[in-house]
Amino acid sequence: MRSLLGDLVAHRLNQMTSGALSKRLYDALQNAIQHGAIAPGTRLPASRDLATELGVSRNTVLAAYEQLQSEGYLQTRTGSGTFVSEKLPDSAPAVEASSVKAKTSSLSHYRLSRRGDRLLSRSRAGAHQWGAFMPGVPDVSHFPQDIWRKIERRLHNRLPMASLSYSQHGGYVQLQQALVEYLHVVRSVNCSADQILITAGTHQALDVLAKMLCDSGDRAWIEEPGYWGIRNVLAVNGVEVVPVPVDDNGLNPPLPDADFRPPRLICVTPSHQYPLGVVMGLERRQALLTLAREWGSLIIEDDYDSEFRFAETPIPALQGLVPDAPVIYLGTFSKTLYPGLRISYAVLPKALAPRIKMAHSELYRGGNGLTQLTLAAFIREGHYAAHVRRMRQIYSKRRQALIEVIERELGPEYVMHHSNAGLHLVLALPDSIDDVALSAELEQKGVLTRPLSLYYTAAAQRRGLILGYACVEAEAMAATFAPIVASLTSSLHQAGAAALLHPELPDPPA
Amino acid sequence: MRSLLGDLVAHRLNQMTSGALSKRLYDALQNAIQHGAIAPGTRLPASRDLATELGVSRNTVLAAYEQLQSEGYLQTRTGSGTFVSEKLPDSAPAVEASSVKAKTSSLSHYRLSRRGDRLLSRSRAGAHQWGAFMPGVPDVSHFPQDIWRKIERRLHNRLPMASLSYSQHGGYVQLQQALVEYLHVVRSVNCSADQILITAGTHQALDVLAKMLCDSGDRAWIEEPGYWGIRNVLAVNGVEVVPVPVDDNGLNPPLPDADFRPPRLICVTPSHQYPLGVVMGLERRQALLTLAREWGSLIIEDDYDSEFRFAETPIPALQGLVPDAPVIYLGTFSKTLYPGLRISYAVLPKALAPRIKMAHSELYRGGNGLTQLTLAAFIREGHYAAHVRRMRQIYSKRRQALIEVIERELGPEYVMHHSNAGLHLVLALPDSIDDVALSAELEQKGVLTRPLSLYYTAAAQRRGLILGYACVEAEAMAATFAPIVASLTSSLHQAGAAALLHPELPDPPA
Repeated sequence: MRSLLGDLVAHRLNQMTSGALSKRLYDALQNAIQHGAIAPGTRLPASRDLATELGVSRNTVLAAYEQLQSEGYLQTRTGSGTFVSEKLPDSAPAVEASSVKAKTSSLSHYRLSRRGDRLLSRSRAGAHQWGAFMPGVPDVSHFPQDIWRKIERRLHNRLPMASLSYSQHGGYVQLQQALVEYLHVVRSVNCSADQILITAGTHQALDVLAKMLCDSGDRAWIEEPGYWGIRNVLAVNGVEVVPVPVDDNGLNPPLPDADFRPPRLICVTPSHQYPLGVVMGLERRQALLTLAREWGSLIIEDDYDSEFRFAETPIPALQGLVPDAPVIYLGTFSKTLYPGLRISYAVLPKALAPRIKMAHSELYRGGNGLTQLTLAAFIREGHYAAHVRRMRQIYSKRRQALIEVIERELGPEYVMHHSNAGLHLVLALPDSIDDVALSAELEQKGVLTRPLSLYYTAAAQRRGLILGYACVEAEAMAATFAPIVASLTSSLHQAGAAALLHPELPDPPA
Repeated sequence: MRSLLGDLVAHRLNQMTSGALSKRLYDALQNAIQHGAIAPGTRLPASRDLATELGVSRNTVLAAYEQLQSEGYLQTRTGSGTFVSEKLPDSAPAVEASSVKAKTSSLSHYRLSRRGDRLLSRSRAGAHQWGAFMPGVPDVSHFPQDIWRKIERRLHNRLPMASLSYSQHGGYVQLQQALVEYLHVVRSVNCSADQILITAGTHQALDVLAKMLCDSGDRAWIEEPGYWGIRNVLAVNGVEVVPVPVDDNGLNPPLPDADFRPPRLICVTPSHQYPLGVVMGLERRQALLTLAREWGSLIIEDDYDSEFRFAETPIPALQGLVPDAPVIYLGTFSKTLYPGLRISYAVLPKALAPRIKMAHSELYRGGNGLTQLTLAAFIREGHYAAHVRRMRQIYSKRRQALIEVIERELGPEYVMHHSNAGLHLVLALPDSIDDVALSAELEQKGVLTRPLSLYYTAAAQRRGLILGYACVEAEAMAATFAPIVASLTSSLHQAGAAALLHPELPDPPA
């Protein structure tokens, strides 16, 4: 078997087809040395061995070695063989060996890209995805598996073969159509089936939008605090993320300053801001639409949990507020059914839909035909609406139970915003409490929470714990919340009994 | 209801909290005009109307209008109202209105990014994904649905709730473990379960690798010709794609030239080059490993259809050829089971695995727990190996049938490379034939083929049609191939009977 160096030389030799063999061998070796492929100091095989490896005469190798030695590329050390010179001759290699070496030495197989390192430094995905108070996850145990499987079985027997191949046109038209009707009735979203792109999760939708709508350096406004996933997907795609503070009315567009450039994307969660829970009022919505119109920006409306409003009439989606709104509406089945289903969707403006769908097919291909067709039937036959209705009642009770426990055990000022919606709320903490440390301590006890601080891009303005109440039964709420009370009480004690809540919060806890 | 301009001004007004109301209104309007939010030439509402809209006195509006007029921001035209001046005063706005306007006017809601436009200009995904001679798609009608559903039902009754949530650790460990054993036996891949990342298709694996391993401008070698999907996913992530010609031995590394920089990634299909079908020999494999070692490059080994070799013993994967090879091995169930399943995987070097998995979770979340667990059992219980074995026999027959038809109807020189593997072969065409036009003509007849030209990044070096024979029964091969013979014969006739095949091909057709 050949040595690695023998392979390398043989390979280079094979690429040259003209000239005397010893000249070609000389060229191959010189080229490899010049470009750093054979490093200075490397011991070359004995001429006899290399000749055998390459299947050439020993004289051919000797001639090449001698020429390279005379030019200073090689040196012989008596008794130990032939080596590549530590200092190569200056004779103008087209690429400086040193520059290749420098480039090479800065590389290593297992280093990440700079953007990769940055992404991981802001990594936020939790190590556990199921358990008490894990936010962003619904109670999957209520999912009507039997109904779902019955539909699946029924469809299965007449499944077109094409539905097992890659999907086209941004997903299956049956699901797109079912969504059109549902979104129109429930969210006042105006669209036709050809505007709907089915994606494997909201992150995939954001990824294809970031690529297709933004070049490197284009700006996107995101909510501060906001969902880390949006920030990370945009940033890793080279989009300059501009965190815009959220007030009691949602994202509050800043006045232009000297550094101002209109954002290409404005990413908002107007129905139920994540994580703070505030709802964007009609006036702010209209102002945002106006700004987007003026600037040629697109609003990304992430309507991730709008199905769960427990009191007030839901505010219609931004997408449907005015005709031809410059809005891309994102919805998901991760919160209404279960996250592992991996089905989300984007409602695209008509003018963009064909191109974004083509890009999606180009970048990800599509699939999951059986799941998409089953979901379409599940919606069309009313099971989806019934499930959402049932879960709304369950979550409403659980939310109420959690608020009662917090108010009783800690005080009403510990509940941040009473938006009465969604699957989570924020337990407001005094500024003196390190919410990251508290959350880590609770995770040790098996209680999953997320610290509010980690949802800020810049310095955190408020402290808190994001609590997902979806998976905790109302009856078990007090007992499940007890470890939080215990840890928090101990933290408060350490921070001093006089720890003050953030000034914006109504009252400091006693 | 307010005018859009009223909304805009109200919004800006709300953001200022101090100063006399007329001064604030002046500031809001001046700011909006300076930054281009209200364009030159815009007619402002009558003072009375704006006052009503904003809920302020008419005098407040008049005071602001007068001040702006005296400074040259506004002009009145008798009888028609107040307008924003076409030429704004020079009084040093922090941001030149003109520059904002220029930025703004270059934007429009529905334009794509430059990278998005480039992607679509190279769009290659076909409009149809199922039918005779569609390459890259297996015969999904043979998938053992009954066995699969039986396993699913069995698992379903004891499915842990966590498997309906987002997945963690790059997929479910059951599937990772099943793959470790399978890959070791069948492909000589050496790895442990924690090195395996489950992805929703190979494109998703490439996407996360491009982001985590390459910064904008880093180079990746791809095969020329090669699979368009790799090229497009890399390019849209800012990676500089360097097409490297494929010879009879696979990707042939070029000699470094003045412009040389070592590639960060070397993307190859060594088992069965796509689309040409050549197999990379051991010597070339070792040379490639040597180069990657020297340069700190990573080889991406896309082993997309290696399960289907019909004669020779399969060559072991690059990944397992030497210990700690700088190789990321990609495999998929799209060709062995069906594409719509959307399950592929990457075998990562140990040193990279935890970080790439974390990034995957961060960028895409995971899911499809039931599918992953079902697949794990399907493999573990031997159904996967049995299915692959059965399909190998079927595809071998179909390949043989297609070759016989081509040789009989056109001549043996029309078959490019006899690699005896995979789900496709290339029908070699004379240079005089426009393979893109021929393929389009055939699609009109309902015959799906892909023109070889489209698999080149630079000018095509050979013409041909890529034919997927997986879905065509051996008995139906001649009849299904007949439209191709008809169209090609007519094209050859038009191109002149003396049309020569490419010189590299053995013999020109008669």
